[in-house]
This record gives sequence, C-alpha cells and structure tokens, in this order.
Amino acid sequence: MKIALINEFSQSSKNPTILGELKKVVEPMGHTVYNTAMEAPLVPQDVPEAYTEDNPRLTYLHLGIQAALLLNSGAVDFVITGCGTGQGALMSLNMYPGVVCGYCIEPTDAYLFLQINNGNALSIPYAKGFGWGADLNLNNIFTKAFGSPKGQGYPASGKESQNRNAAILSTMKTQIAKPLVEALKSLDQNMVKEALIPRFLDCFYAGCKDDELKAYVDSVVASK
Amino acid sequence: MKIALINEFSQSSKNPTILGELKKVVEPMGHTVYNTAMEAPLVPQDVPEAYTEDNPRLTYLHLGIQAALLLNSGAVDFVITGCGTGQGALMSLNMYPGVVCGYCIEPTDAYLFLQINNGNALSIPYAKGFGWGADLNLNNIFTKAFGSPKGQGYPASGKESQNRNAAILSTMKTQIAKPLVEALKSLDQNMVKEALIPRFLDCFYAGCKDDELKAYVDSVVASK
Amino acid sequence: MKIALINEFSQSSKNPTILGELKKVVEPMGHTVYNTAMEAPLVPQDVPEAYTEDNPRLTYLHLGIQAALLLNSGAVDFVITGCGTGQGALMSLNMYPGVVCGYCIEPTDAYLFLQINNGNALSIPYAKGFGWGADLNLNNIFTKAFGSPKGQGYPASGKESQNRNAAILSTMKTQIAKPLVEALKSLDQNMVKEALIPRFLDCFYAGCKDDELKAYVDSVVASK
Amino acid sequence: MKIALINEFSQSSKNPTILGELKKVVEPMGHTVYNTAMEAPLVPQDVPEAYTEDNPRLTYLHLGIQAALLLNSGAVDFVITGCGTGQGALMSLNMYPGVVCGYCIEPTDAYLFLQINNGNALSIPYAKGFGWGADLNLNNIFTKAFGSPKGQGYPASGKESQNRNAAILSTMKTQIAKPLVEALKSLDQNMVKEALIPRFLDCFYAGCKDDELKAYVDSVVASK
Repeated sequence: MKIALINEFSQSSKNPTILGELKKVVEPMGHTVYNTAMEAPLVPQDVPEAYTEDNPRLTYLHLGIQAALLLNSGAVDFVITGCGTGQGALMSLNMYPGVVCGYCIEPTDAYLFLQINNGNALSIPYAKGFGWGADLNLNNIFTKAFGSPKGQGYPASGKESQNRNAAILSTMKTQIAKPLVEALKSLDQNMVKEALIPRFLDCFYAGCKDDELKAYVDSVVASK
Repeated sequence: MKIALINEFSQSSKNPTILGELKKVVEPMGHTVYNTAMEAPLVPQDVPEAYTEDNPRLTYLHLGIQAALLLNSGAVDFVITGCGTGQGALMSLNMYPGVVCGYCIEPTDAYLFLQINNGNALSIPYAKGFGWGADLNLNNIFTKAFGSPKGQGYPASGKESQNRNAAILSTMKTQIAKPLVEALKSLDQNMVKEALIPRFLDCFYAGCKDDELKAYVDSVVASK
Repeated sequence: MKIALINEFSQSSKNPTILGELKKVVEPMGHTVYNTAMEAPLVPQDVPEAYTEDNPRLTYLHLGIQAALLLNSGAVDFVITGCGTGQGALMSLNMYPGVVCGYCIEPTDAYLFLQINNGNALSIPYAKGFGWGADLNLNNIFTKAFGSPKGQGYPASGKESQNRNAAILSTMKTQIAKPLVEALKSLDQNMVKEALIPRFLDCFYAGCKDDELKAYVDSVVASK
Repeated sequence: MKIALINEFSQSSKNPTILGELKKVVEPMGHTVYNTAMEAPLVPQDVPEAYTEDNPRLTYLHLGIQAALLLNSGAVDFVITGCGTGQGALMSLNMYPGVVCGYCIEPTDAYLFLQINNGNALSIPYAKGFGWGADLNLNNIFTKAFGSPKGQGYPASGKESQNRNAAILSTMKTQIAKPLVEALKSLDQNMVKEALIPRFLDCFYAGCKDDELKAYVDSVVASK
C-alpha cells in the first residue's frame, strides 16, 4: 500500500515525529510512505520570507486538494493528515468525492473507522491533546489502522450492513459533488497551484493512473 | 437559535437522554430544540415490522439529507447529530454544501471547533465511549458549544486567519458540490423520501426561507 | 507472570469480557490469569439473596485487601482491577504497602505507568466511558501493559531517575503504613473475611510464599 | 474554601497556567488559592545550581508530604496536584491518611470523583495529553470540581451507599497507616525538610489547626 502523510504549516514542526512513527509501523508491513506536504519549516512559521514557491505555506485547505488528487488518481491508497485539532483537515478532505476521511484521537478510533467505514484517510489532532507521549499514541494509532484488513465490520456480524452503508456513502459523495476535475477547476486556481509542491508532484506523477487527472495537473503545472 | 437534534436508528434509544440534556442546556439560553429524526423505537430495532412510513429506519446516510435541507433553508441554525462512533454521521453531513460539521468527544472539542472552524453542526459518538456518566459529558459539551458566541478564534489572536480559512472552506464546499437541489436530485430519491418523516417536515416547513428548497421538498412529498 | 483480575459487584457483569480480553492477550505471552473476586452474579445485583458466603457482594474496599494479600505474598505478580470509574479501586489498592496501582483509560496510560512508575497493578474504569468497542480498548491496554518489560523509563533517558523515584515511593509506602499483617488486623475483620472468597483462597494458597501472611489468612479462615 | 496548588519540578513551567485558570474559576466562588510548591524555575530545570534551599527541586514524592500536612492540619481544604502523567503525584498523595486523591483528565472525571468518592485532592496530568487548548480543559475541570457541593452521589440515588463507602475508605486509610506524625517521622527527614519551602510554611502556619502537626513542623524547621 502507498500511504501519503500530508501536514499543513501550523503543525509542520511535528512532521518528523509523525513521519518517523508512521514509517516505523508501516514499512515493516511492506507499505511505502510519501511525505507530500509540509515538513518542518527551516525558520519560524511567522516569517513570511521563509516560504518559497517550492515550500509555500500550506493550510488545511490545500491538504484536501492534495488528498483528492492522490487518492482519486491511484497515486496513493491511503492518506494520513491532520492539523491543530484535526477538524479543518478532516472537513477539507471530506469535501471531495473519492476521499473518505475519519477522525482519530486514539487507536480504537482508527480501528473502528477502518472496519466500519472502510475509509481511505485519517485526520489526527497534532496540537490539541498532543503532549508528552504523543509519539506512543501515534504508534498505537498506526498499528491499529494498518495492522489488519479493513472493512471487516465491527462487530463482525455487522460487516454486511456496514459495508453496504459505506459503499452508499461513497456513491452519494460522487452524486453530490461535481466530477473531480470540474470541481477542482471551480476552485481558486492559485490555491491549487500552491498545493502542487515538488514533493507532491513526485508522488503524484510516480503513481497516477488517471489520464484526466494527470492532464489537469499538467495544465496547472504548466501555468505556474 | 433553532437547533435540530438528528439521530439515526442505531442509537435511537439514546435520543431521550440527548434531547433531555440538550434542552436542559439551551432552552434557558433562549434557543429552541427540534427532534427531527429518530426517537426511541417502540420495539427492538431488529424487528423490521416496527418501522413504518412515518417511523422508518433512518441511517446516518439519511441524516445528512435532513441536515442539508434544514441548514440551507434556514429552518434551523445548528444541528446536533451523531451515530455509534459519530464518524458516519460526520461524513454524511460534510458531503453537502452549507453544512460544516465538527467531531466532538468532550467539551473542549466543541468549544475549539466553534471558535476556530465556525461550523453549524456537531457529530457526537453515542455508542463508542458512551458509558456511565455520558449524560454529564453531553451536558458539558452542549454548555461549551452554545455558551459563548462562535467564531471568536482560539487563541483570540488567531481569530482573523481562522475566520478567513473557515470562510474559504465554506466557499470551496459550494464550488466542489453541485448546487444543493441538483445534488439532492442526483441521489436515490427513495432515500430522500425516507428521510422526510413528519417530524422533519414540521420543522422544515415552519422555518424554511428558501423557495427552491421548499419546492423540491414539496415535490418529493407529493410523490410519496 | 501470574496476573489476578479483581472485580467488584458493580461491574461484575463486565467480568467475562475483561477476563476474555486479558486471557487472549497474556496467555500467548506465557502468563497465567486468576479471576479472584466477582464474576457475573447469577441474579440481579440488587437482590440481596443472590449473594452467599461463597459469593458475597464485594465492593472496591474488599478489592484492596485481596490485592494486598496476593501481591505481598507473591501469590501473583500483577493485578488488574477497577470499578465504575476506577477511582475507588485505585485508592483502595494504593492504601497498602507493596501495592503500586496506576490508573488507566487507554493503552498509552498503561505503557507510561509501567515504564515510569514500575507498578504492580492497574485500575480501569468499567462503567464511565465504557461503551461500544470497550473490548478493543481493553485489548489494546493489556497489549501495551504486558507487551514489553516494565521499568525501562520513558523516554529511555529518564530511566535512572524514574526508577529511583519509583523505588523511593515503594519504600515510603512501607514507612507510612503499618506492617501489612498489623494493618490488616486493624481493619474490620468481617470485611477481611468477606474478601476471602474461595476463588481468592485457591489462588492465594497456591502461590503464597510468605509464612506470616499465610498464618494470618489461615486464622481468618478458621474464624469463619 | 482554601485550595492549595502543588506542582513538582518537571511541570513547573506549567504552574503559571494552572494557577491562572484555577484562580479564574474559584476566586469568584469565594475560594482562596495557595501556590505552595514549585513555580516556574528561573533557569532550565536541568541546571542543578538553579535550585536553592528556598527553591529546591521538589519531586512528586515531596508533594505527598505537603498535601498530608496541609489537609490534615486544616490549613487547606483541597489540593490540586499532578505531575507529567499525574500518576506519581496521585500515588504519593494517596499514601497518607487524611488524603483522598482522585485522578482527573477531563471535567466529568472531576465531577464524578467529588460526587461519588467525596475526596479532597485531584491529580492531573500536565505533560501527557497536555497540548494546545489544555488551559480550556483545566478551566472546565476546575469548574466541574468546585461548581457544586461534593458528596451528593451520582446518580443521586447512589448517594447513601457511595457516601458510606467513601467514609469506610477514609477510616481504613487511618487503620492501615501509622498516625500521621509517626508516619512522617518514619520518612527520610531530609526529604521532609526539602518539602517545607517558605511558600508552603506560610500557608501551613497561617491555617494549621493541629498542635501536634504544628509541633512536628516546628521541629523540622528548627533542624534546618
């Protein structure tokens, strides 16, 4: 499985910790991790000059764009995201068709969401409640999220009806939203451009299996 | 403020407790509560005959339809929802334009979401972690959610940038989604019909300020 | 390692679930589990006649007596206990010398307590916050509690000072408390008698390595 | 009511925040707050020279000594304490007769503990889980802890049996422990001396109603 970690500016200082725990857990399982949004900024986050075209200030609003492109193109299979409380990233990702993002504070959240809701993204708070020992909690969350096949239902007897509802939700998202490229074109194209940083593009182009999405990303990149 | 409580079948047995705590907290503040989805079923939930056209089995998928119509029509100003883990209801509501739903386990979640993300709905888990003393937690959550004006930022110094991002999110939702009536018409109309139970319609018609939404609901009701 | 599960009357209906998860986790590690206090009562807990001399109504006050005897005699190495909120059992156990009991809501609590405080008991809430999925949380807690050697410090660099403080706490407990047999003799002897139910005695006599404690228990049993 | 805040060295940097929220909540209720242990150290905590006789490095082991003297002498009516996880302070306080300390992560914990267990101290984690918004959580905890009379039972129907068990626990603590002065004399007297810093002594002497405890403290101070 290919897993993207997508962090915004406000918690970018936690990116190395999150990335470290994620790799520690999932690489031995055979998964590959991509770090496609913000890493720790080189200078304090409130110094505007620290941000450049290749390292722009990405907010939770940009994270949804990255997740939508990566998941819908098949470039990655799963996204780990979050922000200060995790709520902004959660809503940003859930705006898009093809993205089914749960909220996760502790390991049982992750397990239940993946068994019941069969989603492809998790949003985690990296400031609220994120104190000493938070690395242990992240490790437990990733272990429970990726340690067993998803969509098996909880309890197991609920599998059929839970899977059915999860599938209907997914269909409803595509009915309520515009087709993805049309949706992305409806957005402020400057924001889309900002979201397409080099680390993201490396991951996207390496794995994209959707010609229409690739053409759209090409056109945005060309207009930069 | 008009507040709708929207519960699905799986946790309908908790509806009286949730409704009681909600009213206890918000009625003294001058708010009005509507209970527009499932109340406790009269018979065990696994007896199909217990459900009727007026009391159908509503899942979290129906809750989003109710919330979208109530919030976008101005029939209510805020929605309290949830399901077993709260994740299904959360994602169901967040599919729609005009609905900005946060996840809430304890009172600080509610406060931060409303100050930072300035939303109009909260999803709460009513099975996971819902044990003894859960009524106290609900009371605290509602107190913190409705006890102060929302959108003031946290910390206060973050107000401007947090409000700006919240507003952009709201705009992006309308850009990504089809216009609401078109979106609703794209769905399985049987599911929409099921969602429009009498208690919902009372609340919707009493407060709807949007002619297009009213016409759509009229047409669905007429086709029943 | 020998591990005793010690439940009081109020949450005895959860005993089979707790026992099941505990065995599932620790038996494959080579540990043995004893269930020395209340199992699910055969009849509703508010029917006084349901309780007999062999199956008395044990409160959190009795649990401390069992834990003190089991841990100080060497009959068991570790105790899992709790009550509705876990606080009564926690304080009851921590009254005694030789018992170092932590409070545990989720797996990281268990891990940190065992690495930092190097204790020999954990108290868990079995009513407050104990909802759907609580079995998963118990499984995670037991996995983190027993899945690695304790007393290693967290972070590892804190090991020396954390171990030193844990050892001093243990010494201070023996300085503040009377010697255990004298302490137990100071209590209401009826309460001690009630605590010594057959399941407890089986575990105690099978593993007791302390002649003075054995003689004391013998004398209480003889006076029954 | 007189309330002492008692912090150890490891989380002394959080003392101003905790003290601020505590005063904000309880002073309008007419309570008085004493800050009797560590405030923020003037220099990094790992510089031994920063500590002096008047500002020694107090660990959770010292906190129990302070709490036992303050509560048993009547100098204060309630203690707020804690450490990194809150577990060390919790066990340290609960070693002593006359101290009944609960563990508290969120406001419902505080409320339930005070209604059911009728204690006189709360231990809170100030590192584990202590992230952004932790001030809001502290405010909620203090509001629920001190906002209503304690010992009323939860649910109210449980009051009689809960009060009875709380009273028996308190009696058992005095039966298991040595009398307090004898217990304190059994400890390493250097540790007792270290615990008696000027801020503590001001609070103790201002409110002590117990001649034996006063005489003991006098003798320790005289030996300094």
